[in-house]
Amino acid sequence: MMAPAAGELGVHLRVLAEAPDSSAAQVVVDSPVGAASDETAVRDLVAGADVLTFEHEHVPGALLEALQGEGLPVHPGPDALLHAQDKIAMRTRLTELGLPCPRWRALPAGREAAASALEEFLDDVAADDASAPRGGRSAVVKTSRGGYDGKGVRVVASADDVADWLDEAADGGVPLLVEEKVPFIRELSVLVARRPSGEVRTWPVVESIQADGVCSVVVAPAPDLPEETADRARQVAVSVAEGLGVTGVLAVEMFEVPGPRGTTEIAVNELAMRPHNSGHWTIDGAVTSQFEQHLRAVLDLPLGDTSPRAPWTVMANVLGSTLEELTDALPALLAAFPEARVNLYGKGVRPGRKLGHVNVSGDDLDVVRRRAEAAAALLRGESPAEAIPGTSTTTAGATA
Amino acid sequence: MMAPAAGELGVHLRVLAEAPDSSAAQVVVDSPVGAASDETAVRDLVAGADVLTFEHEHVPGALLEALQGEGLPVHPGPDALLHAQDKIAMRTRLTELGLPCPRWRALPAGREAAASALEEFLDDVAADDASAPRGGRSAVVKTSRGGYDGKGVRVVASADDVADWLDEAADGGVPLLVEEKVPFIRELSVLVARRPSGEVRTWPVVESIQADGVCSVVVAPAPDLPEETADRARQVAVSVAEGLGVTGVLAVEMFEVPGPRGTTEIAVNELAMRPHNSGHWTIDGAVTSQFEQHLRAVLDLPLGDTSPRAPWTVMANVLGSTLEELTDALPALLAAFPEARVNLYGKGVRPGRKLGHVNVSGDDLDVVRRRAEAAAALLRGESPAEAIPGTSTTTAGATA
Repeated sequence: MMAPAAGELGVHLRVLAEAPDSSAAQVVVDSPVGAASDETAVRDLVAGADVLTFEHEHVPGALLEALQGEGLPVHPGPDALLHAQDKIAMRTRLTELGLPCPRWRALPAGREAAASALEEFLDDVAADDASAPRGGRSAVVKTSRGGYDGKGVRVVASADDVADWLDEAADGGVPLLVEEKVPFIRELSVLVARRPSGEVRTWPVVESIQADGVCSVVVAPAPDLPEETADRARQVAVSVAEGLGVTGVLAVEMFEVPGPRGTTEIAVNELAMRPHNSGHWTIDGAVTSQFEQHLRAVLDLPLGDTSPRAPWTVMANVLGSTLEELTDALPALLAAFPEARVNLYGKGVRPGRKLGHVNVSGDDLDVVRRRAEAAAALLRGESPAEAIPGTSTTTAGATA
Repeated sequence: MMAPAAGELGVHLRVLAEAPDSSAAQVVVDSPVGAASDETAVRDLVAGADVLTFEHEHVPGALLEALQGEGLPVHPGPDALLHAQDKIAMRTRLTELGLPCPRWRALPAGREAAASALEEFLDDVAADDASAPRGGRSAVVKTSRGGYDGKGVRVVASADDVADWLDEAADGGVPLLVEEKVPFIRELSVLVARRPSGEVRTWPVVESIQADGVCSVVVAPAPDLPEETADRARQVAVSVAEGLGVTGVLAVEMFEVPGPRGTTEIAVNELAMRPHNSGHWTIDGAVTSQFEQHLRAVLDLPLGDTSPRAPWTVMANVLGSTLEELTDALPALLAAFPEARVNLYGKGVRPGRKLGHVNVSGDDLDVVRRRAEAAAALLRGESPAEAIPGTSTTTAGATA
């Protein structure tokens, strides 16, 4: 999705494609095939490049440090990227910076020590929460690395619930951390872009609505968000970008939690140091998209206007499909929703896989959201009768 | 510029590129090199394609007819495309359809007959205009084929002024026509999209401002256009699309001329059967761009919403540059105009060549136009001090 912006700005894009038929290789002319973990492939990729950047975090830090040491600008740099790769590093640094996090603790390496630390954390949380309505003995254990879209995250009531992970960690596997299960009102996300020379811009705070641990719908801006909470969320996102030295686009996923006297507060959940699903609404809904802004930021060009183009934009993800080809849904979709902005990723269909998204903008949030979700449902393979209200009946005048 | 829309809709684009480094080849993965006049190249291109379409009109009609006869959908079809290739065919058909044209006449083939017909036309025009303020003996001679951006167009006061063209035409060259020099108020353009199955959509009528016979600035919508004239302009554009059987995007360039009792009327100037420079504002300024709409139309998919995204969008062309690389202007441009939407075509710099454009949208037309033109001026190589009002002085507080 960075290709159109690169073309418009006259930026030559060379992408290391996972496979000859990957999404990127379908739309980027200069797309050698190789793995991000393959030093030769990466070194061939960057020959002659002005800057190296990423579309995912799974890139070996040591190689990035070597390239940076040889004078290649790497944005975000490996020191910053570490915090999107390692949740313990992220929590440690955010806590040092005084930024709002859920209560958390890194579990020690040994099997018994880890189980004991986890039980202690659960006791502490339960004791503090005894009088709170949510109450109970519950926390979230996460693998510090390799998590993605709800993977590597487990809600537990005792150490027995993650016995397998504790064993793996003790055997030299991925370290674990435990976090308070935050009684959040909803999930928010703040997208921020930062240039090496320091300029920072944020987009409006959005609400991210999950289904089965995966982002399903994003509403921009987050409806009915108190202005103080929105200001605080943007301020925290900027502090994260500056405190961690992030360059490029950063998505800060947050929880909105109840505060004193009817106010709300925020706590940082996860970081993504790249254009992010919660920012896809900007492709059609903001003056400058996150993809163009990322290119501008990593090239240290002045950042673009992040104003919304419409009062509301809703992005609905297409997560899996019963269709063989998503394009089969286009005739019905485009007829029913002429204002819908469809973006298909050219991926093979697999259950739950993010295959594309639909953006709809407008003045009436209810209408905008309903139409974006119905359009996405058509791409998931629902029939028009299921997906489009009013089309299940042939009674004259019954359709909207 | 069709590549981003194709990628988003999941449409595989295969483009016959003029050269390995052409604009299209830089951004389209599947872009074999060849000439549109080369039958073998075109036949290789269309192997397996669902539809053949065009980004210019210089395609041999006989080949298109053969392909169409073999069952390949060709949009626009050769019967329609003829009217964008041949101005005499266009004027003949529009006149048959009763659509408003300047007075015109095809010049006969012989040298003397052509000169005599031209003189007669000039006499007629001068006689009719004797009482009009514009008055005088003047008309526009055009080559029926091959004209482009003011080429193949000459204003004449007598046959002597086109003696060279009359000689060429008599020697079997391109036939000529003569048209009344219309006393136009301004130039308008209506973009219309039409599907094979008949659905038609138009965008708002725009004003096209020329410099040296080439479109320099487009203002969308055309400011202060009487509603009746706007309705009439759209109605004429739709009649052209339907009357000529156009499929895909059609740009109808028009003159706004004085009508009775303070009204204004329109006359058709030129046709372009493809996404057109006067529609580049739609990339950022309309819900559906002309490029996406063209793809939808030629694939017979439902057409998209053509509503504007902002009260005003101004497109300023970058015509030639003193810069070696247009991207050298980006730091100053993006800093001064964070809301500007820059689109560079990846072409080598030549005097007067269309190298890119800038779109700016907003609520205040004067501001929007000034900023779009200043941004384009930077890309043409003007210094910030020249291009950006207020930067020529270092007095504190003097900049905007």
